[in-house]
Amino acid sequence: MNIYNICVLKILFFLSLSQANVIKQESDTCQQILGDELIREISSYGNVRDEIFRYVLEGEFKGKTYDELAKFVDKFGARPSGTEVLENSIDYMIELTRAEDINDIVTEELEVPHWTRGEERVTMLQPRVKNLSVLGLGRSVSTPPEGITAEVVIVTDFAELENSREEDIKGKIVIFDPVYTTYGETSVYRSQSATRASAKGAVASLVRSIAPFSIDSPHTGSQSYGQNVTQIPTAAITLEDADLIRRIINRGEKVILKIEMSSSYDTKISRNTIVDLKGRENPDSLVIVSGHIDSWDVGQGAMDDGGGLFVSWAAPVILKRLNLQPRRTVRSIFWTAEEFGLIGAYAYEEKHRDENHNINFIMESDEGTFAPLGLAVAGNQEARCIIAEILKLFESINATTLVEDDSPGSDIAVITRTGIPGASLHNDNERYFWFHHTAGDTMNVEDERELDLGSAFWTTVAYIIADISVDIPR
Amino acid sequence: MNIYNICVLKILFFLSLSQANVIKQESDTCQQILGDELIREISSYGNVRDEIFRYVLEGEFKGKTYDELAKFVDKFGARPSGTEVLENSIDYMIELTRAEDINDIVTEELEVPHWTRGEERVTMLQPRVKNLSVLGLGRSVSTPPEGITAEVVIVTDFAELENSREEDIKGKIVIFDPVYTTYGETSVYRSQSATRASAKGAVASLVRSIAPFSIDSPHTGSQSYGQNVTQIPTAAITLEDADLIRRIINRGEKVILKIEMSSSYDTKISRNTIVDLKGRENPDSLVIVSGHIDSWDVGQGAMDDGGGLFVSWAAPVILKRLNLQPRRTVRSIFWTAEEFGLIGAYAYEEKHRDENHNINFIMESDEGTFAPLGLAVAGNQEARCIIAEILKLFESINATTLVEDDSPGSDIAVITRTGIPGASLHNDNERYFWFHHTAGDTMNVEDERELDLGSAFWTTVAYIIADISVDIPR
Repeated sequence: MNIYNICVLKILFFLSLSQANVIKQESDTCQQILGDELIREISSYGNVRDEIFRYVLEGEFKGKTYDELAKFVDKFGARPSGTEVLENSIDYMIELTRAEDINDIVTEELEVPHWTRGEERVTMLQPRVKNLSVLGLGRSVSTPPEGITAEVVIVTDFAELENSREEDIKGKIVIFDPVYTTYGETSVYRSQSATRASAKGAVASLVRSIAPFSIDSPHTGSQSYGQNVTQIPTAAITLEDADLIRRIINRGEKVILKIEMSSSYDTKISRNTIVDLKGRENPDSLVIVSGHIDSWDVGQGAMDDGGGLFVSWAAPVILKRLNLQPRRTVRSIFWTAEEFGLIGAYAYEEKHRDENHNINFIMESDEGTFAPLGLAVAGNQEARCIIAEILKLFESINATTLVEDDSPGSDIAVITRTGIPGASLHNDNERYFWFHHTAGDTMNVEDERELDLGSAFWTTVAYIIADISVDIPR
Repeated sequence: MNIYNICVLKILFFLSLSQANVIKQESDTCQQILGDELIREISSYGNVRDEIFRYVLEGEFKGKTYDELAKFVDKFGARPSGTEVLENSIDYMIELTRAEDINDIVTEELEVPHWTRGEERVTMLQPRVKNLSVLGLGRSVSTPPEGITAEVVIVTDFAELENSREEDIKGKIVIFDPVYTTYGETSVYRSQSATRASAKGAVASLVRSIAPFSIDSPHTGSQSYGQNVTQIPTAAITLEDADLIRRIINRGEKVILKIEMSSSYDTKISRNTIVDLKGRENPDSLVIVSGHIDSWDVGQGAMDDGGGLFVSWAAPVILKRLNLQPRRTVRSIFWTAEEFGLIGAYAYEEKHRDENHNINFIMESDEGTFAPLGLAVAGNQEARCIIAEILKLFESINATTLVEDDSPGSDIAVITRTGIPGASLHNDNERYFWFHHTAGDTMNVEDERELDLGSAFWTTVAYIIADISVDIPR
């Protein structure tokens, strides 16, 4: 070892020292909680991990997650709640699964929203004529045929709206222009914008797209009207146009917009799809993997949530192909109508409430299927220690991170909030919200190798949790 | 100095050793060419550099380039060749300059293309119905009112087209789907697509947008029809849709598109604008800074080329405000109709051909005004040595790089190819082609601090070249 190498090691050592201490303390606590025997048992799954990873990354399954996702997405495109294309895509997934000789498949019907976007146009009339790129928000009502023409009031947050005088808002178009922090924090300006603005007398509401980056990209998403307010039209505009209007108003000029939007809204019947790879010892006990099959009407829903759907489809398929039957059942659920408010998940939770004790652990991938980094986990300390121990098996792909999250995922939050432990795929999704709910949610966002890593990781984690000697404690 | 610091220095030293040798050799040659006296003279401009940088980065001009650009872009939006809004924006720039008490301003009229985009719609009819995001290319003819419906042939490059049998192309829509390498290399698939496809009997041509990244973003741009070919409609589609169609065709399926496009085309009169800050000793000798004022009809032309226009506007303004009058004249040119093929620059070159000996050095910024990194320089070795020596003054902002480029810039290539030395702003424009010719070319791409750095750098370089005792040799 030469002087250069010694120096580098020394530097890395100094840098890692403090972090290492924290990790060691946590690790000591978990070691006490789990005991040596369980730790040895978990680490013994290294062989299964290797088998699955070889099969998915180098063997017959290599590239299959990407290819099957591409075929699916290219065939159906967008799959909005309540549409025939969504139902056809559900039938397709059932056939695709049956072709793998997995036949424990049931669907459960439920009523879902069916909101159809019509023509949408927002035009700045003053101080100059400019068309804005726009996407109406889910459930938005139409404007009158002649549109709505009004002056704009722009606010940064709800407090600024609430502090405005009624007469400054009445008859105006309100633009919500929040600072994007996280999606969780900021998306409330989309979901509540119409209700809040209407309550103060606005005639329409627009929201700065809930995104950190844009190439003139409007981002749609769901919203719902509160009780006792006039339902006013509502849409997302781009970061660029929000900033433009902000600058113009800051210069003391008046902005007048004309909004023309049409849509229709009713309900339809859709289905959750439940695929079981029955456990060999305790088939009633479930380890659930899941993603949603519906998407927004723009883009192709490749990322949201085609990727999550397909890594969750892949888990029982890979196990079946490798003849790996765990003690407990691995259940894969393809949720429907997530985008309109976790409609499928609510229906499932209600229908299966009295068997909820059977859910040993529930997983969901709905925040991208980029390179896996670990899991965001809800559960008590013992549950998290078990998951942390399992994640140690993924050091070679750098997927050992356990993020403590009391409400991971979207659909599964409906289940985990009843006290059932669960996890969401933690992945390298830094750009996720660049594409989310836009026309840019296509196969171009997806990466073959990252999807392979995702499928292999997802399948291995599900297998181990479904197979170890202990249940995940609550 | 502790062991850690010694280690780091040692590592950095090893890493930089080989690069340093190359730079030292070049530097030795330049030292011989320039001689100590000129080198000392150039380095003596450190004081002027400091004065300009203080004024622009911390003084009265701080933020002004961004603010003035934003006011301009927000007021006029897109400024396509041949439009009234472009002419109004030219008048505005003249007034803005006059307000700085700079009155040596002339405009020179010329005939420019006036192509107006109408309705554009491309719909995939088979294997499923999908609207494609699309932008017609400059000068494209319209389709018949009923549109053009035909099967698609997709090719990677011109060779693949040329090698195709006539009967495989005849009556088809050709999609050019080149691999993006550099803009210079790849954009030929936009500018020549219609001509090449038409020559083989295609009824329309589409081109994968000339860009490395997309959020469903079509990129327009110019094209021209060759002699003796039928003029067929031509447009850019997104990376996403090009890949989608490629995958579908690779699976053996047929793709049928319907293209509906309308446009009109005539010519109008526009103007180049010439602003002179007269030199104190040799006013006939010109150091030109320039950018183009026209833009594409989508987006706002903030990046292409609002930034270049405004740093070039700023150069004489800053010098005037600081009462820095160099020996030679600093001329700022706002080119018109660049986007339709350097129309303004050609007219200028033709009109001023017999005074071309007066151009000491010509500069252009038309590749973004992100953080300046240096200059891309055309000229003989002595010229480049002088510029390299000047660039040494910008070490503190990391803008010392001289890129040897025989044809830097766009408009000024018309001048430099006659043997006149010149340079284009070399800047940190990695994402330039993400936004180029899209609706996303807005103020959101621009950064206040980077524009300040650009203005300060541009002004200082122009001043030094205009003031040093020697002409830039040819």
